[in-house]
Amino acid sequence: MFAHNKRLQYTVRVSDTNPGLANLLLEQFGGPQGELAAACRYFTQALAEEDPGRKDMLMDIATEELSHLEVIGTLVAMLNRSAKGRLAEGVDTEAEMYRQISGGGNDSHVTQVLYGGGPALINSAGQLWNAGYIDSIGDPSADLRSNIAAEARAKIIYERLINCTDDPGVKEALGFLMTREIAHQQSFEKALYSMQPNFPPGKLPGMPEFTNVYFNMSQGDGDMRGPWNSDENFEYREAQPAVDGGDGLASVRMKADDQQVLQQAATRLRSDPDCDPLTGAELGAGEALDASTMGQKDLLG
Amino acid sequence: MFAHNKRLQYTVRVSDTNPGLANLLLEQFGGPQGELAAACRYFTQALAEEDPGRKDMLMDIATEELSHLEVIGTLVAMLNRSAKGRLAEGVDTEAEMYRQISGGGNDSHVTQVLYGGGPALINSAGQLWNAGYIDSIGDPSADLRSNIAAEARAKIIYERLINCTDDPGVKEALGFLMTREIAHQQSFEKALYSMQPNFPPGKLPGMPEFTNVYFNMSQGDGDMRGPWNSDENFEYREAQPAVDGGDGLASVRMKADDQQVLQQAATRLRSDPDCDPLTGAELGAGEALDASTMGQKDLLG
Amino acid sequence: MFAHNKRLQYTVRVSDTNPGLANLLLEQFGGPQGELAAACRYFTQALAEEDPGRKDMLMDIATEELSHLEVIGTLVAMLNRSAKGRLAEGVDTEAEMYRQISGGGNDSHVTQVLYGGGPALINSAGQLWNAGYIDSIGDPSADLRSNIAAEARAKIIYERLINCTDDPGVKEALGFLMTREIAHQQSFEKALYSMQPNFPPGKLPGMPEFTNVYFNMSQGDGDMRGPWNSDENFEYREAQPAVDGGDGLASVRMKADDQQVLQQAATRLRSDPDCDPLTGAELGAGEALDASTMGQKDLLG
Amino acid sequence: MFAHNKRLQYTVRVSDTNPGLANLLLEQFGGPQGELAAACRYFTQALAEEDPGRKDMLMDIATEELSHLEVIGTLVAMLNRSAKGRLAEGVDTEAEMYRQISGGGNDSHVTQVLYGGGPALINSAGQLWNAGYIDSIGDPSADLRSNIAAEARAKIIYERLINCTDDPGVKEALGFLMTREIAHQQSFEKALYSMQPNFPPGKLPGMPEFTNVYFNMSQGDGDMRGPWNSDENFEYREAQPAVDGGDGLASVRMKADDQQVLQQAATRLRSDPDCDPLTGAELGAGEALDASTMGQKDLLG
Amino acid sequence: MFAHNKRLQYTVRVSDTNPGLANLLLEQFGGPQGELAAACRYFTQALAEEDPGRKDMLMDIATEELSHLEVIGTLVAMLNRSAKGRLAEGVDTEAEMYRQISGGGNDSHVTQVLYGGGPALINSAGQLWNAGYIDSIGDPSADLRSNIAAEARAKIIYERLINCTDDPGVKEALGFLMTREIAHQQSFEKALYSMQPNFPPGKLPGMPEFTNVYFNMSQGDGDMRGPWNSDENFEYREAQPAVDGGDGLASVRMKADDQQVLQQAATRLRSDPDCDPLTGAELGAGEALDASTMGQKDLLG
Amino acid sequence: MFAHNKRLQYTVRVSDTNPGLANLLLEQFGGPQGELAAACRYFTQALAEEDPGRKDMLMDIATEELSHLEVIGTLVAMLNRSAKGRLAEGVDTEAEMYRQISGGGNDSHVTQVLYGGGPALINSAGQLWNAGYIDSIGDPSADLRSNIAAEARAKIIYERLINCTDDPGVKEALGFLMTREIAHQQSFEKALYSMQPNFPPGKLPGMPEFTNVYFNMSQGDGDMRGPWNSDENFEYREAQPAVDGGDGLASVRMKADDQQVLQQAATRLRSDPDCDPLTGAELGAGEALDASTMGQKDLLG
Repeated sequence: MFAHNKRLQYTVRVSDTNPGLANLLLEQFGGPQGELAAACRYFTQALAEEDPGRKDMLMDIATEELSHLEVIGTLVAMLNRSAKGRLAEGVDTEAEMYRQISGGGNDSHVTQVLYGGGPALINSAGQLWNAGYIDSIGDPSADLRSNIAAEARAKIIYERLINCTDDPGVKEALGFLMTREIAHQQSFEKALYSMQPNFPPGKLPGMPEFTNVYFNMSQGDGDMRGPWNSDENFEYREAQPAVDGGDGLASVRMKADDQQVLQQAATRLRSDPDCDPLTGAELGAGEALDASTMGQKDLLG
Repeated sequence: MFAHNKRLQYTVRVSDTNPGLANLLLEQFGGPQGELAAACRYFTQALAEEDPGRKDMLMDIATEELSHLEVIGTLVAMLNRSAKGRLAEGVDTEAEMYRQISGGGNDSHVTQVLYGGGPALINSAGQLWNAGYIDSIGDPSADLRSNIAAEARAKIIYERLINCTDDPGVKEALGFLMTREIAHQQSFEKALYSMQPNFPPGKLPGMPEFTNVYFNMSQGDGDMRGPWNSDENFEYREAQPAVDGGDGLASVRMKADDQQVLQQAATRLRSDPDCDPLTGAELGAGEALDASTMGQKDLLG
Repeated sequence: MFAHNKRLQYTVRVSDTNPGLANLLLEQFGGPQGELAAACRYFTQALAEEDPGRKDMLMDIATEELSHLEVIGTLVAMLNRSAKGRLAEGVDTEAEMYRQISGGGNDSHVTQVLYGGGPALINSAGQLWNAGYIDSIGDPSADLRSNIAAEARAKIIYERLINCTDDPGVKEALGFLMTREIAHQQSFEKALYSMQPNFPPGKLPGMPEFTNVYFNMSQGDGDMRGPWNSDENFEYREAQPAVDGGDGLASVRMKADDQQVLQQAATRLRSDPDCDPLTGAELGAGEALDASTMGQKDLLG
Repeated sequence: MFAHNKRLQYTVRVSDTNPGLANLLLEQFGGPQGELAAACRYFTQALAEEDPGRKDMLMDIATEELSHLEVIGTLVAMLNRSAKGRLAEGVDTEAEMYRQISGGGNDSHVTQVLYGGGPALINSAGQLWNAGYIDSIGDPSADLRSNIAAEARAKIIYERLINCTDDPGVKEALGFLMTREIAHQQSFEKALYSMQPNFPPGKLPGMPEFTNVYFNMSQGDGDMRGPWNSDENFEYREAQPAVDGGDGLASVRMKADDQQVLQQAATRLRSDPDCDPLTGAELGAGEALDASTMGQKDLLG
Repeated sequence: MFAHNKRLQYTVRVSDTNPGLANLLLEQFGGPQGELAAACRYFTQALAEEDPGRKDMLMDIATEELSHLEVIGTLVAMLNRSAKGRLAEGVDTEAEMYRQISGGGNDSHVTQVLYGGGPALINSAGQLWNAGYIDSIGDPSADLRSNIAAEARAKIIYERLINCTDDPGVKEALGFLMTREIAHQQSFEKALYSMQPNFPPGKLPGMPEFTNVYFNMSQGDGDMRGPWNSDENFEYREAQPAVDGGDGLASVRMKADDQQVLQQAATRLRSDPDCDPLTGAELGAGEALDASTMGQKDLLG
Repeated sequence: MFAHNKRLQYTVRVSDTNPGLANLLLEQFGGPQGELAAACRYFTQALAEEDPGRKDMLMDIATEELSHLEVIGTLVAMLNRSAKGRLAEGVDTEAEMYRQISGGGNDSHVTQVLYGGGPALINSAGQLWNAGYIDSIGDPSADLRSNIAAEARAKIIYERLINCTDDPGVKEALGFLMTREIAHQQSFEKALYSMQPNFPPGKLPGMPEFTNVYFNMSQGDGDMRGPWNSDENFEYREAQPAVDGGDGLASVRMKADDQQVLQQAATRLRSDPDCDPLTGAELGAGEALDASTMGQKDLLG
């Protein structure tokens, strides 16, 4: 069960309202690398987790991410407070209001007109949050790696936002949130590597003849060798079809009846390679043909 | 700040695992009327709320909805526990596994194959949750009504789910969740009506000549009168264009230069009403015309 | 069956073209609170409605909303008429065109480049309309409340747009559309309350011990009492897990075989709490280890 | 302005309720090739159309598609009428209700549980309708082709549905709807070809050296020649990079300062090709390393 | 199997970095009419195609579209190269960075903050690409028409982008990409018309009495006649319900038991047309009523 | 530039057609962990990559993933070949066709009715692919981790699919695809760790006082200690608000004028905690009040 304490995990002190900056911060509220995605990722994993240690850790961190969602959402709300009141009360002239709404240089008009200055679960471009951002699949050797990657991504987005604001209070709160991603990544790493073996993920082994092969599929000046395709670690092979030694074709056994029906469809829908038909594009490239007067019905047989 | 207590708000006792039922319950986990949508709706409203009473209430209820999300997600996890293990370990023959995965009669195959038996933020058809489900707009006279409606919808979905299961533990937990929607609706109602006036929403009054008009736009046998369009409450008028008394047309002042450019585009893109052109459909309805041998180039002149 | 009259329900007189304002108005064309969502909401409800009075009312209002969609879409089209022609004909220098396309201060570049100046079913941020905006669930005690809330939201968005334009013709048309939301809300209210009882929604009663409880889930300075949680109306309780009196835990009966398979999976995927593994993060924080020369294979055993 | 006549464009006579069939029919209600997409496509085009003939035609057909949306939606509603009542009233045992909800063999459970038996703007898999289905771009030489294609697609989907039902009333209504797609396609074809020239679309000509070239990008057994790549119509060329005669590389002029900053980033983020680092995968493939006891800190420098 | 050559199909020479232009170009990278949609459209069709000529052609063109995706994506990457480095390294003051990020006049802030200057599969408004953009349905008489239309649309979008930039290298590369859409359209046209007959699509014929009817559904000043609804080509009829000669109503046979249950639901959920209930809106329009002191319980009795 | 070889990378030999299995395999064609997502992820990263080694590797693997997309799509096409023909030709009775379409036990009806048996960019539940599945952010220390995680996820999904089919040809092809994910993961790992340091990601350091803290946010029986929160690695702290030592509240400096406007809005929208208003729910719980006869106007003041 969740409980809420009215004090934030980190104190929020905003120097000046700024709807444009509020809009940028939405990236970490309702964006793909934001706190809602993080909280949902770990919370859903925790619910189905059988390992008691990971379950505890996942719920600890999910709960903290919810608390971060509150911090970043509060930053957005504070930055929008002036704009929210002015639009609700309609105290400005319409021309001035239009200028304020449209002049932010980014999508802050959406936060104002559609969401009334409240933090919305969109990213900084107005894209609705969707659960496709969450990549949990219910296997810890994959999910922990997904969590590690997600923390790394979130750290970078916070860093970029920090580079875009000189409001010291906003900067400090963003710095705290960024720091916690580093801490969380370390916990997920420890959890992953305390599960042994964790590579390859899952139970089924790979086919030995292809597990350590590197295919050079992109060719030309710029081919490089490094540990990711070195002879020490991989068998380096040129791109080649039918690596199984077969013909590289696709086949399926079909019942005779199905085969016949399929053939019937193929015949009905055949494009004849031996004709040169007049096309719509050709009709469209020339002058209009008047079907009624130019005897086209004959042409059409 | 949020904190989490490892005990659920309501004890979950599931009689038997059942992936098909788990899949149905996803409707209230990651569906449009589910608990994530509820929690997000109230939480985002709370962040931007200026009224201390409503802010407190919204955060109270948001936090409870998060706790409900945990209960419904736990139900899903419990119902999937057997299937989760069997697929992960691959202990069944492939044919048997295929039958189990595909035989649920609903979309439970997605929960198994894609999500490994964990609760996912999808509805029972596999539709990803998206923030378009949240209708908060940052004005309490609208948002409270949205919340009232959302609670009513969630109550009904729970009722339908309860009608679909005879597992007593599932039924009881669903009953609790359903009941709480009733309680929350009552709180939102009290908050709405303690804001006076709350109708019409917002500050701007309507145009008096249209505020109490009912237009009979759908006509024929079946026209009904009732309090929603009665003479006591409304001026009942037949459908009519240009109710403003104008010509019902659209106009815009354009600069002469713009007007000329637009006219140029219109001329270039004109469909000539006075020709009867040969069309692609006509070509396609007849026999193939061979452009190279039938002198079509001339026709296209 | 629908029929269309070429005259608009309300005459549209736009003073000057303005792609930026056109873009803002998209909010009520293809946005979540816009006229397409309204029309679809009531139309789909009408189709399945068994009550003759509500069915008539829903179709009346759905049809009017379609007519409003036409009005708002016509406003958008008029405001974009100059820009549409100039881009289609390419009469400006590229630098000037780029400036016009990008300089609107909001997302009007999308309307121009992607939609050619036509009204598109997106909101003012370019977010595609989706049917998740429609919250109909096929129960009138819920759907009528959803409709009431939707009308309240639409009224507010119109009010905000009105606050952003000083074009008298645009203002007047928006005022008409805003006014009709007030009228529609009143009809839906009458329809809801002429259905008795309509609360709680549905047939199943709540569990009496939880129907009038208010849980104080968010605690600290800022706790408030009001009619939404007053002793007169509610039993006010502090947050508490396991309100059913159980242990707050989750359980499910599983077949012994399933239990064993699940245990097997848990063992395979266990994170050992008693080790302190070297992690990828630690590798990444230090200098590169060269596996081939530093005997790491031994370390990895 | 739209008006509604309570009589359908085509009489709907359903023999027996059938939620599974209802679910399939959703494909033409809320699916990508369905009637809402058609109505929205033509309606939005009509609003911005400058050509009076096309504007009239587009609004005629848009209005008819709305009327078709009503027909297909009414079919869905009729097919769901029994299920709707039984679930709302809860008259069956839970086990029987679960069987009915889940046993349809397709996604009809969503229509029941989430939408209460009403027609919803989803396709037969429960995917929410979205405006990405609409491909209008505001140029008639493109939009009319899009409309032609859309009518062809809708015709095929109706044909498939007709092949799946033996209910004579459903079959007949679907047959009418399918027929009208044929009629509409013919109108759009006439409108396209009465605009001359209509190919290539737009104003800018292609680069002559590439306008009639066909590149054989997919090579091997199966290469075919036909009018689509014949020497009569095209210059047939093998796949080749840098067809402009350049080096096929990408370049951009950057300010020296920008160049230096970019180089700084590249250096910071360089993957060294000359090392062979120990990786997380290697850690995960072996036994757990205990950092505290095995002196790894030294290894990590 | 695909292979990649490190040289582009067309050399990319960008004069100056320009994040705003990069953002516009995203329209053809991750937008609905862009190259990913094109490649996916033809590739998925090719996989299931039975006709050897079309299969070859579809794969040829799909592969070229992938190569175009690389060209347009490379343009975006080049245009963003300066911005990418500066944000990653944080070399500017925060105020300067904020100005750069927000000042582009369009949505380039998303490309910078969320995607780090890399080309992302979004359109120029930040809308995520989704597979609803792809309209393939597995019937060549429809799919080829869809392809023709798609090429026409893509040609127009390129033309608009060309009109917005004076960078000669960008202009030239866009010109090549635009040209190839013309070539592809011609191939698809030839393939369509070499399939005879291709109209009407599919196997089932239309109902003769409705195949050549044009309904005048939109009425009033502005009704136009042209080849799309002329007497030569169509039977021109006024809008009329129940064109089948029936009553225009909907009916379904239901079992007596189902009928009774449905009636029970209807009765339970009836809106009484003969009352005039007090509504929430009326409560909200007046002063707050205090239920505890004003005896409302009796009123509600 | 891409080129295509008509032979597959791996030969596809399917024993029997099976639309239900085809539908499951869509998970790796158009699902979130599927090959399109993989190809797009690496391809978009490659385009903006400055490091020559990573750029080469990313393009190599992107190209191979496209080749895998072809293999999995070909499997789907083969498994659907019989069904495709039968539906297109309509050779079965309608009842039989309905049974075949609906009886697959999963969502294969969508593949048939909507996509005509062709592979579509949806997952096994019919959810449209969207670019939110791609988590690239343009920083290699994050993107390489995302790639590692993505390969791990894909490996697991393949493993689950292999567990669900006993068709030896399908199993073998899936086995190849699964194996390659293992190989790719190893390459990405080598690339990550050859970039030193790669942790923490980005340039900005964390705040030292919070970088190694673990907050126990979820409390109760089940709290566990392990390397992810051990004293050796972390400072273990109980959940606590305002960890910065402040008051945990949010503040913003506002101009006096803005403050006054905001106060005005708050007053206008205040919910009075001291009244007990009659609510809509109370109206709905009792009998209908007749406003016209019961003097409610007085009550409403």
